[in-house]
Amino acid sequence: MRMAELSRRSEVPVPTIKYYLREGLLPTGVRTGRNQADYTEDHLRRLTMIRALRNVGGLSVTAVRDVLAAVDADGPRPHQVFRVAQEAIAGPGLEEDSAEARAAFAEVDELIARMGWRIAPTSPARGTLARLLHDIRRAGDEGLLDTLDERAEIAEQVAELDLRTAWSRPDLAAQVRTVVVGTVLGDALATTLRRLAQQHVSLTGSGRPDHR
Amino acid sequence: MRMAELSRRSEVPVPTIKYYLREGLLPTGVRTGRNQADYTEDHLRRLTMIRALRNVGGLSVTAVRDVLAAVDADGPRPHQVFRVAQEAIAGPGLEEDSAEARAAFAEVDELIARMGWRIAPTSPARGTLARLLHDIRRAGDEGLLDTLDERAEIAEQVAELDLRTAWSRPDLAAQVRTVVVGTVLGDALATTLRRLAQQHVSLTGSGRPDHR
Repeated sequence: MRMAELSRRSEVPVPTIKYYLREGLLPTGVRTGRNQADYTEDHLRRLTMIRALRNVGGLSVTAVRDVLAAVDADGPRPHQVFRVAQEAIAGPGLEEDSAEARAAFAEVDELIARMGWRIAPTSPARGTLARLLHDIRRAGDEGLLDTLDERAEIAEQVAELDLRTAWSRPDLAAQVRTVVVGTVLGDALATTLRRLAQQHVSLTGSGRPDHR
Repeated sequence: MRMAELSRRSEVPVPTIKYYLREGLLPTGVRTGRNQADYTEDHLRRLTMIRALRNVGGLSVTAVRDVLAAVDADGPRPHQVFRVAQEAIAGPGLEEDSAEARAAFAEVDELIARMGWRIAPTSPARGTLARLLHDIRRAGDEGLLDTLDERAEIAEQVAELDLRTAWSRPDLAAQVRTVVVGTVLGDALATTLRRLAQQHVSLTGSGRPDHR
C-alpha cells in the first residue's frame, strides 16, 4: 500500500510516519518510484504497535525504541522482553530516603514474601509499588491496603493468563509481540473492564447499603 | 501546620499549593497572621488526593475540580461518584463512523450481554473498550481477545472487592474518598501488582515452554 493508505489505516499522520521512518522505528518500504514506496501489512502492524505504545502506554520515542529493539533482538526470551517492556513503562519509583519510604519498601518485600513471588531486587515495579503504598496511605485510604493480599492473588491470576496467552502464540516473534502489546494494551484493557464491572456491581451488587 | 510543612509532607511545591488555594481546590487555612495560615491533616489528605489525581490519574485541573465537586456534594450516592470519577479519567473513545468501529461496539455489547452486566449506553468506558478492542485487533494480538471473557470475570472480582472496600468505610465521606482514590490509585496498584506477578510467573510458571 502507499503511504497515504498506511496513514489512513493506522490513524497515524503522514509527517509522524516519516519521522518514525527517519528514526528507524519503522523499516523503509520497497521503493517503487522516485518519491514513492510500497508498504505491507507488517508495516501497518508495527505502526499500530508504535501508536499503542505511544498513546496508550504513554511511552517516549526513546522508550519505544528500547522496546522495539527487544522485540527485534534475535531470540530474546519472553521474560527478558517482559523486563524491557516493564522498564519502559515503569512509573516513578520511591527514593529510600526517609523512614516512611523505608517502611513502604519493607511492606512491599513482606507482600512479595507472603505471596512467595520471585522478584529481582532491582525490579522497577518494586519501587513503583512502594511509591503507591506510600501515596495511598497518605491519601487516607486504608481500604485499598486492607485488601492488598486479595488484589495480589487476583494479579497472579491475570499474570498466569498473560503468560499462557503469550506462550500459546505460534512462534517466538508472535510471543514477543503478545508480551509487548499485552503489557501495554492489556493494562488499559484491565482498567476498562474494571470500570464496566464497577458500574454493574455498584448498581446491582449484593451487600450494598441503602443510601437515599 | 504551616505551609512549608504542608509542602514538605505532601511533596507538592509551595507555588502549586498557592495555585490550588486560588483555584478553590484546597480550602484556605485558618489565618494566624498577616501572611500566615495554619493547615490541618485534612488539608494534607486533600492535597495528597489532588496530587494522586493529577500525577497518577493524569487528570487536568478541571477534571480534578469535577471529581472534588462530586466528593464535596452533599450526600452523593457512591455509584454517582463512581460515574464522575470514571468520566474524569476516561480515555479516548471510538467514533462509530466505520463498519470496523461499529463491529467493535457490537463486540463490546455482546461481551456486556454475556456477562449480564447492567451498563448505561452512554458510559464512557463502553467507547474506551471499543477503542481498545479495535487497537488490539489492529496490532495483531488476538491472544488478548481470546481471553476476553476470563479477563472480564476477573474484572468483576476486582470490582466486587472495590465496592466492598468502599461500603465498609465508616461514613459516606470516607466511602466517597475510597471510591475516588480507589479508582485512580487502584488502577495503578492493579497494574503494578500485575507486573510483579508477571515477573514471578515468567520465571517460575508451569507450562512454560523451554526457550534457549
